[in-house]
Amino acid sequence: MWWIVTILFLLNGVCDAGITSSFVRKAAPSIEIPKVHFPPPDGYNAPEQVHITQGDYVGKSVIVSWVTPLEKEPNFVTYWEADEKKNIKRNRVHAKITTYRYYNYSSGYIHHATINRLQYNTKYAYELGSGNGTRQFSFTTPPEIGPDVPYTFGLIGDLGQTLASRETLEHYLSTKKGQTVLFLGDFSYADVHPYHDNEKWDTFGRFIEKSNAYEPWIYIAGNHELDLSPEIGEYVPFKPYKHRYHVPFQASGSRSPLWYSIKRASTHIIVLSSYSAFAIYTPQYTWLKEELTKVNRSETPWLIILMHSPMYNSNNYHFMEGETMRVVFEPWFVKYKVDFVFAGHVHSYERSERVSNIQYNITDGLSTPVKDVSAPVYITVGDGGNIEGIADSFTEHQPDYSAFREASFGHALLEIKNRTHAFYSWHRNQDSMAVSGDSIWFYNRHFYPKEERSSNE
Amino acid sequence: MWWIVTILFLLNGVCDAGITSSFVRKAAPSIEIPKVHFPPPDGYNAPEQVHITQGDYVGKSVIVSWVTPLEKEPNFVTYWEADEKKNIKRNRVHAKITTYRYYNYSSGYIHHATINRLQYNTKYAYELGSGNGTRQFSFTTPPEIGPDVPYTFGLIGDLGQTLASRETLEHYLSTKKGQTVLFLGDFSYADVHPYHDNEKWDTFGRFIEKSNAYEPWIYIAGNHELDLSPEIGEYVPFKPYKHRYHVPFQASGSRSPLWYSIKRASTHIIVLSSYSAFAIYTPQYTWLKEELTKVNRSETPWLIILMHSPMYNSNNYHFMEGETMRVVFEPWFVKYKVDFVFAGHVHSYERSERVSNIQYNITDGLSTPVKDVSAPVYITVGDGGNIEGIADSFTEHQPDYSAFREASFGHALLEIKNRTHAFYSWHRNQDSMAVSGDSIWFYNRHFYPKEERSSNE
Repeated sequence: MWWIVTILFLLNGVCDAGITSSFVRKAAPSIEIPKVHFPPPDGYNAPEQVHITQGDYVGKSVIVSWVTPLEKEPNFVTYWEADEKKNIKRNRVHAKITTYRYYNYSSGYIHHATINRLQYNTKYAYELGSGNGTRQFSFTTPPEIGPDVPYTFGLIGDLGQTLASRETLEHYLSTKKGQTVLFLGDFSYADVHPYHDNEKWDTFGRFIEKSNAYEPWIYIAGNHELDLSPEIGEYVPFKPYKHRYHVPFQASGSRSPLWYSIKRASTHIIVLSSYSAFAIYTPQYTWLKEELTKVNRSETPWLIILMHSPMYNSNNYHFMEGETMRVVFEPWFVKYKVDFVFAGHVHSYERSERVSNIQYNITDGLSTPVKDVSAPVYITVGDGGNIEGIADSFTEHQPDYSAFREASFGHALLEIKNRTHAFYSWHRNQDSMAVSGDSIWFYNRHFYPKEERSSNE
Repeated sequence: MWWIVTILFLLNGVCDAGITSSFVRKAAPSIEIPKVHFPPPDGYNAPEQVHITQGDYVGKSVIVSWVTPLEKEPNFVTYWEADEKKNIKRNRVHAKITTYRYYNYSSGYIHHATINRLQYNTKYAYELGSGNGTRQFSFTTPPEIGPDVPYTFGLIGDLGQTLASRETLEHYLSTKKGQTVLFLGDFSYADVHPYHDNEKWDTFGRFIEKSNAYEPWIYIAGNHELDLSPEIGEYVPFKPYKHRYHVPFQASGSRSPLWYSIKRASTHIIVLSSYSAFAIYTPQYTWLKEELTKVNRSETPWLIILMHSPMYNSNNYHFMEGETMRVVFEPWFVKYKVDFVFAGHVHSYERSERVSNIQYNITDGLSTPVKDVSAPVYITVGDGGNIEGIADSFTEHQPDYSAFREASFGHALLEIKNRTHAFYSWHRNQDSMAVSGDSIWFYNRHFYPKEERSSNE
């Protein structure tokens, strides 16, 4: 079935119009996986929900986070180079411990340990816990930063913990290509359960451990991380998220974990917060303004921005919610020739043309997006497969800014090859991994700012 | 000179175009009044910087705030009905005390006492301090809430503490008409001085005391209240402001002093924060969405919104900075038939037509403001007269949404007469108070939604 669709796309693509995929996803309810299917690991006080992320600005550091249910100790991570030929020297780093209460829920001990001064491009093993609760994992540090360093990112958003979520994660893991996940926000969907059942944050942590204990996820906060529930006395935004998922925001001069940046391989990745203040003069605005001047394309040619709420979206779900940030930041994205803006939030898939919409002065009528080789491509990968289901209602006439859109669950891969080329593909869960529902060679905006040809054309 | 200009306006006004005033303000530098000109009051530990604001949702409560330099005590306000014919019963309310440090500055003891259960429409005297530092003031509570209650508000924004600031305040006080000031943000401009010299917050408090100790000012935070200076370790937004100026935000269900609402006389006044998060799902958004449903026009016909950064502005200074909030909130303002949106920020004066710009869907081209009888009038009164000087660069062709604009310092008065009519006037500092640079009878959007005739037509 899908190949017919693909051929139709190829034929259809000869005209310049955007494509609304006619792939029809088999109707399926979004079934949450019950909590009992995410049991804690065996062993006394065994560390669980193990997850790692980059711990500094340049990729020589890793934050290892885990939860212990009963006791604080042992509160350290032991790590060593995994190459057995070398003399194995074990090192130990202690964690900071935090806990929180959310209405009638009390968290376990949440540990965050930052391992510094790692070697680039090196596999490390690490161990947590003690006795019969001891657990081992491993990760590989990225190559040293450089303009032609190949690197592959997975892109997952709005994951949740449903049967579809599991399909997405397994599908991604089956590629064995991804080295780091750019996670576009909306983690556990605990907030859709009564009293924001925070045990769902625990089960989500167990769910993603098979990936996130072994490769870094770069975190951004979505609206489901706000966890606002004033009627039960919970009105501090992002409380569970900030306790559970630490990020290296100070390393990039940010004062908030909700916006920060990292450099990794050949990329400079900037994380923005759709749900914090971003108007002129605010901390996020002033930080981003300065951060963009620090981007060195000769060192990191690929400039990537992550946010939860898309700026370009032609789905009726969340239509135009990103406008409030677009009118502030889009001029900078064009000025600094951002390569990609990845977002989640809308539970479907969409890729934009390279367009900008920055001429508007209230009265000039110039408010329609136009093709712009200096503009980013905007890609929405909010299709992780969460409990709220698919966003299957696109605006009736596909707008010109929309290159490809489809209401399916899936994930994407961004395979950076060198300073000029990156291969990008989106994979719907229903297909085998060899198939991509959408793919395109992207050209770097700094070193090779040519117009791309979509694979669909 | 000004009367010639006024006549020219009258002639000019017969066509429908907006008016860019040709009044030429005498060029004058913005001279800051030196600190020594704002000495503390006499007496040991004398209370200073005395200021009051509404203390509850309905106007039966007042927050009295003051600073003592040396000792915490006495930490109470004594108050009584000022009508001498009555048996004077003195009451006492204790204050909460706060202090803060800002870089090398340490504040005095900042007292905030909330006087509850006051009678409507009653003059009260109040006393602070002790011994030779005793000081007395008075205020009058508003009439009981009702649809036809007349009430007069002063409108002052971006005041600062320059010679022009003093002209503005004296000019306003000379009217003896204003009963409450709607203060549109940007208080002391301490932040333009080295290390945000917080003594300027003290001198500003002394400067406005002659008004604000006697009539409530309704406070909103501007960008100069952010006081961000990470290079000296000050990165908590609104720190001095939040310590010094308390507002009754909890009374309207808000969790932040930066947005809240009050009812007063025949008005429902909503304060919004231009520099906090306001995108969908955020606390300010969800609060405003609910608050607007609570407005009862039969009780308070006049719905007034205050913000610092204007949504409609045709000055090159801060042009389009309000767009990011406009695209989120403007549809609500039209739906709920808001009467006025008052803003500051731009250091000049501007009044809009009743326009809306809410049809835009990215691709329909409908992005130009159109006349709309359900829309608010947007008025910028950022012309208090601060150290940064006048914003004297308007966009070249006056856009249709702009009804009147002039680069002068001044203030405005909103005289609500009953449920249908309000007389509004703007007064430039150079004129006698009998003269208004701009005036208009406004009609209530709920009870009498007719198109107004500008006095300038």
